[in-house]
Amino acid sequence: MRETIKVIIWGFGAMGSGMAEMLIKKKGVEIVGVCDRHETRVGKDMYEVLGLDRGERNPVIITDNINDISKEKFADVALLATDSFTRGAYDKIVLMLENKMNVISTAEEMAYPQAQEPELAKKMNEIAKDNGVTVLGTGINPGFVLDYLILALSGTCESVEHISASRVNDLSPFGHAVMEEQGVGLTKEAFLKGVKDRTVAGHVGFPESIHMVADGIGWNIEKIDETREPIMSNTDRKTKYTEVKAGNVAGCKQCGYGYVGGEMKIDMEHPQQILPETEGIDTGDYINIKGVPNINMAIKPEIPGGIGTIAMCVNMIPHVLNAGAGLKTMLDLPVPRAIMGDMRDLLD
Amino acid sequence: MRETIKVIIWGFGAMGSGMAEMLIKKKGVEIVGVCDRHETRVGKDMYEVLGLDRGERNPVIITDNINDISKEKFADVALLATDSFTRGAYDKIVLMLENKMNVISTAEEMAYPQAQEPELAKKMNEIAKDNGVTVLGTGINPGFVLDYLILALSGTCESVEHISASRVNDLSPFGHAVMEEQGVGLTKEAFLKGVKDRTVAGHVGFPESIHMVADGIGWNIEKIDETREPIMSNTDRKTKYTEVKAGNVAGCKQCGYGYVGGEMKIDMEHPQQILPETEGIDTGDYINIKGVPNINMAIKPEIPGGIGTIAMCVNMIPHVLNAGAGLKTMLDLPVPRAIMGDMRDLLD
Repeated sequence: MRETIKVIIWGFGAMGSGMAEMLIKKKGVEIVGVCDRHETRVGKDMYEVLGLDRGERNPVIITDNINDISKEKFADVALLATDSFTRGAYDKIVLMLENKMNVISTAEEMAYPQAQEPELAKKMNEIAKDNGVTVLGTGINPGFVLDYLILALSGTCESVEHISASRVNDLSPFGHAVMEEQGVGLTKEAFLKGVKDRTVAGHVGFPESIHMVADGIGWNIEKIDETREPIMSNTDRKTKYTEVKAGNVAGCKQCGYGYVGGEMKIDMEHPQQILPETEGIDTGDYINIKGVPNINMAIKPEIPGGIGTIAMCVNMIPHVLNAGAGLKTMLDLPVPRAIMGDMRDLLD
Repeated sequence: MRETIKVIIWGFGAMGSGMAEMLIKKKGVEIVGVCDRHETRVGKDMYEVLGLDRGERNPVIITDNINDISKEKFADVALLATDSFTRGAYDKIVLMLENKMNVISTAEEMAYPQAQEPELAKKMNEIAKDNGVTVLGTGINPGFVLDYLILALSGTCESVEHISASRVNDLSPFGHAVMEEQGVGLTKEAFLKGVKDRTVAGHVGFPESIHMVADGIGWNIEKIDETREPIMSNTDRKTKYTEVKAGNVAGCKQCGYGYVGGEMKIDMEHPQQILPETEGIDTGDYINIKGVPNINMAIKPEIPGGIGTIAMCVNMIPHVLNAGAGLKTMLDLPVPRAIMGDMRDLLD
């Protein structure tokens, strides 16, 4: 029998700790290190932080010094759950690669760094190859709903003329940071100002999804437009974390448009708000391909973002270990799937 | 610039000729040979048979002697659209492989020959490897809806407990052969007799789809049950090809069940009938995963079977050319997708 697959996790927030919880339930894989800078976690056993019984397992003491666990071949794969932007994740990724560890990143832009950071993508590809390891960015979106799933459905098409897709979700489970990023609770004026000064960031990932889809099917994207509009609430809404008065902003409707040959060929919509059901809005993931044939897909409710991202990163581990060296995207690797057996059985 | 990708097509019925029509519209690929035994086609130019203007292209004279086009490296890939069963396709596949041509087969069982023909699968794998080429079976179903798409969605799951999927379609566009296979127009008694003596064959592919899903996520299938039941019509129904009286059989409802650890973990349903809308039935592809999270997907109407199979086979050409030698399945290769650019751009 092969040795267990060894994993380190860098960043132990909602995503990193969720991956740990998932990995602990899986066979053939073990967590050998965690790095996180949050003072309530540093120096503690990961199992204690998760509130889980460690059983027969070795303790995994959370360090705030990445050098403790970023050593040559210390793990087979590093799960990096720290950033949204390629630029922020880059040095961390390089450190892992240079220590000959494969990397899976949750950073939204890393799902397709070719889109907005082609230079960094090229460098990561070279460094990964030089060290004989692989780097992949993935997650629920970008990484699956508004790119991979569109491409998979297009595989049944003779031709594609236009792609519309939409991910309508409920922000209610999310905390203060997300509320701020999405401008929830603001007045319309404050929201519009926030979009301008980038404090209302909205969704990160449309350029990545649009480029991934276009490159995947062979369209040359000339231009991408993005808009961020306030979703105004007609009712008072209240969650555990926030409150929105009628007349204020319940969330952010973000749209992305990809142009090919002077024509808008891809449009994506990602309205995110708290409690959309209060105004009769069904959450869901929707893909409409206009082509031969037309395809109309709906997933209701939407695949949840948190679990989805956690699962995608963990489920891609064996594919990343099997892949050739370099920067890979979801376009390159075999179909992601749940792993209900021993993870080692999926290794070549 | 690379040379164009060269393709031969063996079998020029609805699938084979449909692939030809699709390929003719694509860039970077050309058809260099067609074999078919139907007397109305043999000796004629493929473009004439398709009713298309040949333009500047060389004629492709349809031969009934496969040896005319099955020569060493005569083409990069052979599209084989002749059979439903691995056993029927086997000798043809081997002939192609031994002539160092990659093979894509529409035979339903070839989507996962490991399921029912593990010995032949092993042999094809060896022969393909010995000749440095690849063989893949694919299509809309098996090959996509009730296996690949289920797996892709499961990639967003931490765990999967049960999978239910259903493909509800309309047989109206199909001709006499399909009506007979599905028992359309028979009395209930004749249908049940037909199921027993196998003249009512129904859908070929449930064992393949169930094994592909189970192997993909790491479940050990212990047993597969299949049922074929008549769909009784309450109304008179009439298509271009057939007529069904009220009280007779409008189609075949086929179910497949996969057991894991003594429990039924996968159930699939494929009711096929003419004019389902006459009794208020919506056609569609439906996938329900019970797990963490639950996923409920619907594609309405269903992805059409004919176009879907044609597109999957053609769209997988570059992935097959890029793949390592041997027998591959949809589990092994990158995401299928429409090809709107030059097919050669997808080659490594």
